[in-house]
Amino acid sequence: MHASKRQLHLNLFIMGNGHHEAAWRMEGCRPRDVTKADYYAGLLRTAEQGKLDSLFLADSYALPPTIRYKVLQSLEPFTLLSALAMGTSRIGLIGTASTTYSHPYHVARQFASLDFISEGRAAWNIVTSTNDATAYNFAGERLPDHSERYLRAEEFVDVVRRLWDSWEDEAILADQDQGIYADPERIHAILHSGEHFSVRGPLNLPRPPQGQPVRVQAGASETGKEFAAKLAEVVFTAQNSMADGQLFYADVKARLAKYGRSPEELKILPGFCAIIGDTEAEAKEREVELHRHIQLDYGLHRLSNLFQTDMSAFPLDEPVPVEFLSRQAEVNGHRGRYALYVELARREKLTVRELIRQTASSRGHYSMAGTPVQIADEMEKWWREGAADGFNVMPPYLPAGLEQFVGKVVPELQNRGVFRGEYEGTTLREHYGLLRPANRYGKAGLTVSG
Amino acid sequence: MHASKRQLHLNLFIMGNGHHEAAWRMEGCRPRDVTKADYYAGLLRTAEQGKLDSLFLADSYALPPTIRYKVLQSLEPFTLLSALAMGTSRIGLIGTASTTYSHPYHVARQFASLDFISEGRAAWNIVTSTNDATAYNFAGERLPDHSERYLRAEEFVDVVRRLWDSWEDEAILADQDQGIYADPERIHAILHSGEHFSVRGPLNLPRPPQGQPVRVQAGASETGKEFAAKLAEVVFTAQNSMADGQLFYADVKARLAKYGRSPEELKILPGFCAIIGDTEAEAKEREVELHRHIQLDYGLHRLSNLFQTDMSAFPLDEPVPVEFLSRQAEVNGHRGRYALYVELARREKLTVRELIRQTASSRGHYSMAGTPVQIADEMEKWWREGAADGFNVMPPYLPAGLEQFVGKVVPELQNRGVFRGEYEGTTLREHYGLLRPANRYGKAGLTVSG
Ligand SMILES: Cc1cc2nc3c(=O)[nH]c(=O)nc-3n(C[C@H](O)[C@H](O)[C@H](O)COP(=O)(O)O)c2cc1C
Ligand SMILES: Cc1cc2nc3c(=O)[nH]c(=O)nc-3n(C[C@H](O)[C@H](O)[C@H](O)COP(=O)(O)O)c2cc1C
Repeated sequence: MHASKRQLHLNLFIMGNGHHEAAWRMEGCRPRDVTKADYYAGLLRTAEQGKLDSLFLADSYALPPTIRYKVLQSLEPFTLLSALAMGTSRIGLIGTASTTYSHPYHVARQFASLDFISEGRAAWNIVTSTNDATAYNFAGERLPDHSERYLRAEEFVDVVRRLWDSWEDEAILADQDQGIYADPERIHAILHSGEHFSVRGPLNLPRPPQGQPVRVQAGASETGKEFAAKLAEVVFTAQNSMADGQLFYADVKARLAKYGRSPEELKILPGFCAIIGDTEAEAKEREVELHRHIQLDYGLHRLSNLFQTDMSAFPLDEPVPVEFLSRQAEVNGHRGRYALYVELARREKLTVRELIRQTASSRGHYSMAGTPVQIADEMEKWWREGAADGFNVMPPYLPAGLEQFVGKVVPELQNRGVFRGEYEGTTLREHYGLLRPANRYGKAGLTVSG
Repeated sequence: MHASKRQLHLNLFIMGNGHHEAAWRMEGCRPRDVTKADYYAGLLRTAEQGKLDSLFLADSYALPPTIRYKVLQSLEPFTLLSALAMGTSRIGLIGTASTTYSHPYHVARQFASLDFISEGRAAWNIVTSTNDATAYNFAGERLPDHSERYLRAEEFVDVVRRLWDSWEDEAILADQDQGIYADPERIHAILHSGEHFSVRGPLNLPRPPQGQPVRVQAGASETGKEFAAKLAEVVFTAQNSMADGQLFYADVKARLAKYGRSPEELKILPGFCAIIGDTEAEAKEREVELHRHIQLDYGLHRLSNLFQTDMSAFPLDEPVPVEFLSRQAEVNGHRGRYALYVELARREKLTVRELIRQTASSRGHYSMAGTPVQIADEMEKWWREGAADGFNVMPPYLPAGLEQFVGKVVPELQNRGVFRGEYEGTTLREHYGLLRPANRYGKAGLTVSG
């Protein structure tokens, strides 16, 4: 597995009726579907036909203030992913849980359970929460600051991983004759007592099929990238251009060595929003059609939120006030995207209106409109030239945008031999070419399976 | 619905390979199945063929100290019930969540999400946690005391219900032309700031299909019964005999009036463990076969745990030390079952060995071995004579015990006209004949649907 030839990885990232903020207003998109499990099940069947590695559900624990203008993101990830596990057999299932407003025992257990239900397809997108609205649903006060959140996250992840290891792989004997279900000597209390948590363990579930569900992260700050290098196995990132992607890729991969890790142990997947047409003209028309549905006041809301500044105070058709925003840069929250937008506006000399439009399809992720060949070309280039190990595929509108991607771009990538034509393994670790981790409590060698 | 003729309700309560603690050692029971979703899916298909009202999964957040002797109870409830929602269309799904070691925003959201996924079949078994092992996985110290736990539970339930109401039923407009997804004036912050929680709201999901998922509880103490009368819609209970059941039933129903509630607004479901044979002799043989697999040291563990006393210090074949145990009665924990066991031992003058045997099938719940007609007779009697509105059906071994119940006892109850031959509604509220609650924020009348 580990030694086989390098392949591109494709993760499907879905939100509401698609990533373009106005997608839900398009013909063929059904805003009332976003609370229905069958809607997601249909998308996932398509993704599995396309042999995609995984599905990702982002999450936060607060209602966005822009709910007037934009459909809900999705249902709750643990419940929805578990439901989706049942109609599928291969595709990985990546859920989000925040280390700031959850407890490690619940998180360890729900991911372990999802890993059992899906027979080895669970992954955890580790986030620290970025908005005060979430904080007010849990704590009655604002978010802890950025570095404090990351300290807590490290302890949290450590506890969760030890809980996943708390049963050795061979702990269950299920010996009906002798009446021994499990060997208590192979089940370990973790006896954690730290700055933020006190957790005795063991987990009340056996070690999950993957040993440990896969760890995903999307840190963009210095602290975030260091965290990824130390603890993540997959990194999501938003990059405006291949050049930016190359810088990020080199940066994060270079950090691995100091943790004794090799570059293949961490996969970097930038977001990629493709507006697909059989001809370039058709693709551009679709883009115009999407942009036509944008609501300016929503765009202003969104930017104001991100920048923590009332953006309606600035003229729509004059340049984004990048100097003012840069001075404010020490905002406690979504650092990554904040800097990305300011940089984009500076480089392309965008007006406020243009920034709204340019970020409407993909919130700062790379976005292009083109033919399947053009899109496959761009993906292959990023992948060959050190900007990506694969992509977070972000259909701008659903379900059609996904059907076009799976029906037209995937075969193009398969024909080029850079993407699998069939699943080779059954677990998400196998799709990504990640080793099943040894159990820290187990006898060395016994629990590693390639 | 509300006015139609009174019917018996049947909830399926499953644990591991069945409720008898030695079930997993029987031929036909597969201990390795308890971590597989397909195993539960198969059981649920059988239950739905039997038109049962619901499935119940009990839960705690700690590994039982007796894992050597007995299979795991199940996977994690939110993930497992969501998976099970997908292969079924009618049966209700009751999950357990503790108000002592969870947060109301997560609980409100996961049940709301399950209610969407199942299209109106979710219910919450509200528990306060009863063992210190759970406490040590969350808090590094022992359980808060009983009354403190119930105070926290009241506040918790109140917050959860307000979150479920935080979107009015008509809040989603999904107006693609105007670009209005939801009407912010119909979505309400709950602004809760209480003794235990500070939660601003609103929930980040619309009001669930049932308005509010059904509330289930199993209080046995004075405080617990008062809580049930005030807040529960379904009550589980363990009763040794019909006479005890009648006392409990009358007691709890009589408490409703002071909260302005009528007796039909709360359904009482005692546990019922049936060992079924085509002849009485066959049923008794099955019981002997089950008991043959009991492990004495497991039984001692179990009793020691419940009584928080080392029971191996007492001779196996001498009477249970009921006086000693009664003096200890102020144990901070499982009060209900503690008292039940002491009472059973006192009344039936049981030795320690006999108490182990008598409680092995159903942990204090009513248990009988008999023919389908005898079992239906007993159930009908409890139901007609004021001991029950229905039952928590507890198959002693799985899957065969459930197949026998659905194949033989259910048709007997249907023939007598006391149990439905077909589902009449689609939601769990409809199965139980419980009204869909009006939204406290909505316009009166609009949100009530029979
Ligand atoms: C593709 C992608 C998905 C993300 N998903 C979430 C999410 O679901 N929930 C969340 O709170 N943050 C999410 N984030 C934010 C990141 O977790 C992270 O906080 C952000 O990139 C800023 O980096 P920093 O934490 O190092 O400052 C996501 C970021 C990216 C690029
Ligand atoms: C059928 C039944 C199921 C129960 N399920 C759970 C459970 O899943 N988790 C839990 O912590 N307690 C459970 N309990 C315990 C009750 O919630 C309650 O704590 C117990 O009956 C003692 O009552 P009290 O809390 O009023 O003292 C259950 C009790 C019964 C009778």
